Amino acid sequence: MLKVGIVGGTGYTGVELLRLLVHHPKVSVSVITSRSEAGVEVSALFPSLRGMVELKFVDPSNAELDSCDLVFFATPNGIAMQQAKPLLDAGVRVIDLAADFRLKDAATWEKWYGMPHANPQLLSEAVYGLPEINRDKIRQAQLVANPGCYPTAVQLGFLPLIEAGVVDEGHLIADAKSGVSGAGRKAEIDTLFGEASDNFKAYNVSGHRHWPEIRQGLADVAGKEVGLIFVPHLTPMIRGIHATLYARFTREVEVQELFEKRYAGEEFVDVLPPGSHPDTRSVRGANFCRIAVHRPQNGDTVVVLSVIDNLVKGAAGQAVQNMNIMFEFPESAGLHHAALLP
Amino acid sequence: MLKVGIVGGTGYTGVELLRLLVHHPKVSVSVITSRSEAGVEVSALFPSLRGMVELKFVDPSNAELDSCDLVFFATPNGIAMQQAKPLLDAGVRVIDLAADFRLKDAATWEKWYGMPHANPQLLSEAVYGLPEINRDKIRQAQLVANPGCYPTAVQLGFLPLIEAGVVDEGHLIADAKSGVSGAGRKAEIDTLFGEASDNFKAYNVSGHRHWPEIRQGLADVAGKEVGLIFVPHLTPMIRGIHATLYARFTREVEVQELFEKRYAGEEFVDVLPPGSHPDTRSVRGANFCRIAVHRPQNGDTVVVLSVIDNLVKGAAGQAVQNMNIMFEFPESAGLHHAALLP
Amino acid sequence: MLKVGIVGGTGYTGVELLRLLVHHPKVSVSVITSRSEAGVEVSALFPSLRGMVELKFVDPSNAELDSCDLVFFATPNGIAMQQAKPLLDAGVRVIDLAADFRLKDAATWEKWYGMPHANPQLLSEAVYGLPEINRDKIRQAQLVANPGCYPTAVQLGFLPLIEAGVVDEGHLIADAKSGVSGAGRKAEIDTLFGEASDNFKAYNVSGHRHWPEIRQGLADVAGKEVGLIFVPHLTPMIRGIHATLYARFTREVEVQELFEKRYAGEEFVDVLPPGSHPDTRSVRGANFCRIAVHRPQNGDTVVVLSVIDNLVKGAAGQAVQNMNIMFEFPESAGLHHAALLP
Amino acid sequence: MLKVGIVGGTGYTGVELLRLLVHHPKVSVSVITSRSEAGVEVSALFPSLRGMVELKFVDPSNAELDSCDLVFFATPNGIAMQQAKPLLDAGVRVIDLAADFRLKDAATWEKWYGMPHANPQLLSEAVYGLPEINRDKIRQAQLVANPGCYPTAVQLGFLPLIEAGVVDEGHLIADAKSGVSGAGRKAEIDTLFGEASDNFKAYNVSGHRHWPEIRQGLADVAGKEVGLIFVPHLTPMIRGIHATLYARFTREVEVQELFEKRYAGEEFVDVLPPGSHPDTRSVRGANFCRIAVHRPQNGDTVVVLSVIDNLVKGAAGQAVQNMNIMFEFPESAGLHHAALLP
Repeated sequence: MLKVGIVGGTGYTGVELLRLLVHHPKVSVSVITSRSEAGVEVSALFPSLRGMVELKFVDPSNAELDSCDLVFFATPNGIAMQQAKPLLDAGVRVIDLAADFRLKDAATWEKWYGMPHANPQLLSEAVYGLPEINRDKIRQAQLVANPGCYPTAVQLGFLPLIEAGVVDEGHLIADAKSGVSGAGRKAEIDTLFGEASDNFKAYNVSGHRHWPEIRQGLADVAGKEVGLIFVPHLTPMIRGIHATLYARFTREVEVQELFEKRYAGEEFVDVLPPGSHPDTRSVRGANFCRIAVHRPQNGDTVVVLSVIDNLVKGAAGQAVQNMNIMFEFPESAGLHHAALLP
Repeated sequence: MLKVGIVGGTGYTGVELLRLLVHHPKVSVSVITSRSEAGVEVSALFPSLRGMVELKFVDPSNAELDSCDLVFFATPNGIAMQQAKPLLDAGVRVIDLAADFRLKDAATWEKWYGMPHANPQLLSEAVYGLPEINRDKIRQAQLVANPGCYPTAVQLGFLPLIEAGVVDEGHLIADAKSGVSGAGRKAEIDTLFGEASDNFKAYNVSGHRHWPEIRQGLADVAGKEVGLIFVPHLTPMIRGIHATLYARFTREVEVQELFEKRYAGEEFVDVLPPGSHPDTRSVRGANFCRIAVHRPQNGDTVVVLSVIDNLVKGAAGQAVQNMNIMFEFPESAGLHHAALLP
Repeated sequence: MLKVGIVGGTGYTGVELLRLLVHHPKVSVSVITSRSEAGVEVSALFPSLRGMVELKFVDPSNAELDSCDLVFFATPNGIAMQQAKPLLDAGVRVIDLAADFRLKDAATWEKWYGMPHANPQLLSEAVYGLPEINRDKIRQAQLVANPGCYPTAVQLGFLPLIEAGVVDEGHLIADAKSGVSGAGRKAEIDTLFGEASDNFKAYNVSGHRHWPEIRQGLADVAGKEVGLIFVPHLTPMIRGIHATLYARFTREVEVQELFEKRYAGEEFVDVLPPGSHPDTRSVRGANFCRIAVHRPQNGDTVVVLSVIDNLVKGAAGQAVQNMNIMFEFPESAGLHHAALLP
Repeated sequence: MLKVGIVGGTGYTGVELLRLLVHHPKVSVSVITSRSEAGVEVSALFPSLRGMVELKFVDPSNAELDSCDLVFFATPNGIAMQQAKPLLDAGVRVIDLAADFRLKDAATWEKWYGMPHANPQLLSEAVYGLPEINRDKIRQAQLVANPGCYPTAVQLGFLPLIEAGVVDEGHLIADAKSGVSGAGRKAEIDTLFGEASDNFKAYNVSGHRHWPEIRQGLADVAGKEVGLIFVPHLTPMIRGIHATLYARFTREVEVQELFEKRYAGEEFVDVLPPGSHPDTRSVRGANFCRIAVHRPQNGDTVVVLSVIDNLVKGAAGQAVQNMNIMFEFPESAGLHHAALLP
């Protein structure tokens, strides 16, 4: 069994990792850390795991992480960049679910994340963990930067269009809607039930941290800068991202076929039949990205609808998928769950 | 007191009209009809109105509507077009909250609503009841076509840009999100709590009935056809529409100032300070449209955020506003409610 | 116009007070305090009040509260007990929406609220502001302790039974369910959307602060101690309390009639017809308590269903009702709103 | 592989059965019927199952159910009683997820379900499928009546107390709260999002069909009639039942120990530590019943909190558990899912 550690296990991505790993056929979680909950049974904090997880949270200072084969960082931004290096040096492979290694350019990272980067060298070493683009690199990677939730949904939706070079990549629009769990398990007024329920709003229209990440990813594919308007919205649901993507065709293409071909071999990207409208619950708790492609009134604009569960394909599920690739397990090991519906 | 009748009082727009009219200083509701609930106390169906509404639902065949000064149709599409004529002939003024008179072109109407129009002559007579555009015509109107919910939010958001001629009106995008009450109080599987809660999806991407209505309204203002991509989404909240609008500038403009000037005299359109993100609950139960204008990364695309309560400014509230204009009451009479927050 | 001050205006009861007072015909809010938001426009924090409230939050140290006729404390527990005395001495009447003056016994208060009481003398002076019991005392009161939300729903539901002496008051059961806004506008993990949505749980079964308050109120009516099991539950809705009350008959009574007679003259307590099931939305945003009485299988147990909006009849609305009584305004002044449905 | 058929696969229990069976190691679903959706791909109706279920819905008249080893009826009440007999005669074992065989007394059944029973003989043959009581009988059963959702939560909560004879079983109270999916996937106004969201109410206080089922089950255990007040409530969440149970002690007992011992060997009943409050999400999507026991103020009343997922332990999961027992699979085969949290 692969020996796995989790740093920062009290957030939503941490508990979701546990939900997925607890029945993974090849993996055993041997250590999980938390500064605030050290000494507490994991199942006392998360009774959903009673009878499945026998671990206690361990203070990071006492955690024997370097005896693990793999360590997941499910921490806030800014932690993994400080702690990954010694683990990597000890031969431990690392997947960071936070943003510390997602951007290649340190200056850009520092601008958007508002702090100096503790280890800019690692930025170039890290592999961006979107398997549908980087599968081969992930297989070899010592350090994987697990993509953000919005970037996963948006990139997978634009990817076939950009790769094929059939749209004006200077004027992409991503209107994205996220469930509230995307904000994490942090005590904040904005994400209280009384604030977020029965309510809908855009936020960070002037600039969101996932904007440079999406642009970087699409630029890599396009081979040049892309122009992107990215408007995130907060939606009164727990899990789920729905990205509605707009682009203008620059030449004719059979767009449904384009998407189906691009993702024919991808187990976790599901292109729906023409005319479909994927709903977020069709991926609730599951590692799929479901995509539908529309061309309203047969005009010059393509509309792509792309849904994921922000905590699964947008976080912990994708991390497990990356682990499976890194350790040459079947890519879907431990990820067979059907979505919970209703 | 103005004598008012309501045809079709068992839906959400009907009960919302009652909520607003029951304390209106100038109006008395004298008759409310329902085929299915004839003989039932209104307050038995809607206990929220106990002690405030003493009426019973009356079968339409027995309703003395022609003794009213004004009749609201809060019926499904296709009813008002059959019943409005004799009332108008009897001198009763009519506000239709359904879609029967919203489009000027009968063929277009018939295509989108899937039935022959019973009275195409009335289409030209009817005044489209968006006060911010048509206030003077509404004042004189015998027959007012109350706008759809999406069209209200979208048109008010695009209006200043189109009037000023500063954007490419051939490529407008309206990404709109609606609460579930927009689908009405009808027994349907898609809008069950078990289907719509904790879920998000687009629908009718290939074509929605509000698309021609929005295009007609904006074309009137632009003086030419407009190109519009309109993608509606179903959001797990009861009330509220959030329209996120995208357009590309064709020339420089101080866009915040443009909006503020355009709506300076409008009591029910509220332009928020720069950098704002209106949330739908800021208009929950209130007749306001709140708007914020953004220009991300100072680029060539304007993003307008426009929120309304679909049952108030998007239906019953706007109908009351139209009534106030038609009968020369203060435009905000009966519409003073602050939004319910939280 | 009555000159009114609000201390602590940034919570849910504060903004709800503003919503109700802003259109009150006899009242003008002249000052509202907040330590954290001093200098900020009220309508910047609560855009729902844009165009209706022109005030800024004032730091408590600069607030000229003693020039008010009435001051509402919408503060956390423990503030009013420190600040009420000088205001009272200056002739300002005070309504505390927190718990500082709800219990008559200082030792009990200190036990349940976990701090010493700053002014135990005021406990005996304060009038418990449940108008349906204490209307005459409220009229004369200088200091009103506005009841808790659960206590309002539970006491109004049990009151006719206890007064009539027809049930075993030694074994009352109150199974109460509250919307999440009851926990206030505080950054806490338990009331995050991600925690409270699509979820239901009991809490504080071993003891809740409202338990001694309810027992005190019912004991006053019964003329002796009462036995009470009180189980509060957190429900995934914003507003509303539903109390399901159980008691065993000690003698025969026509229970529907008993309730109807008891509340015949009460404008804000509405006894529904036999067989009814009040829903919380029938009072959403409104100051009513709606009650239905059942006797399942015609057995020896009475089941009372009692609903209120925790922020209105359970807090700000009841406070306004108390103000109306204290200043001899019509009791329903400013409280005419019909509930928001749906 | 066990050959399994599902009759009536378009409801919530049907799709939940599929979610659980699709990865069950011992089972293959070979036929699923639906009158209304015959010919439609299952995954077209339920995109959450895309890539996992290759079946089409088959018209019941063409379904080769008698070649199955086991048939689940996930139909409305009144279907299985008409169709089970020929299957049983053909040696097919049957689990009915509806109510057709839950009550032993035909007259009682007919009174509560409002129709004549088509096959009263089967009532005595059928085994009530609550494994924690009837495991041995289930193992032998040809026909299993899968318990109702409320009855599962309520009986498991009262069971240790009744078995031990330590409470007044003449005055039991079950205050139960259910998510909206309990009402099924049927087009009805009461369970629309617009009606059920942000709302809470009791229903059927005068009598609910699960009342005789619970009483029958508890009477079997008690060896005599039991008195029960059962008040169900509709809660704005999709899945979950929370039963709050009240009983009065007739003699002293260490109640935590009593529960722990009773359920020590039960894999799917989890007794929480003293002082706990189980939340429904701790079992969302999982087959557990989690229970906590309280004795407020150390008085004479016990309060039991019992939660299940109404579609899993309250329906499809329990049906799979029964199947596992009937066919001597490990009882938890296919039922290992951790709850989805958040």
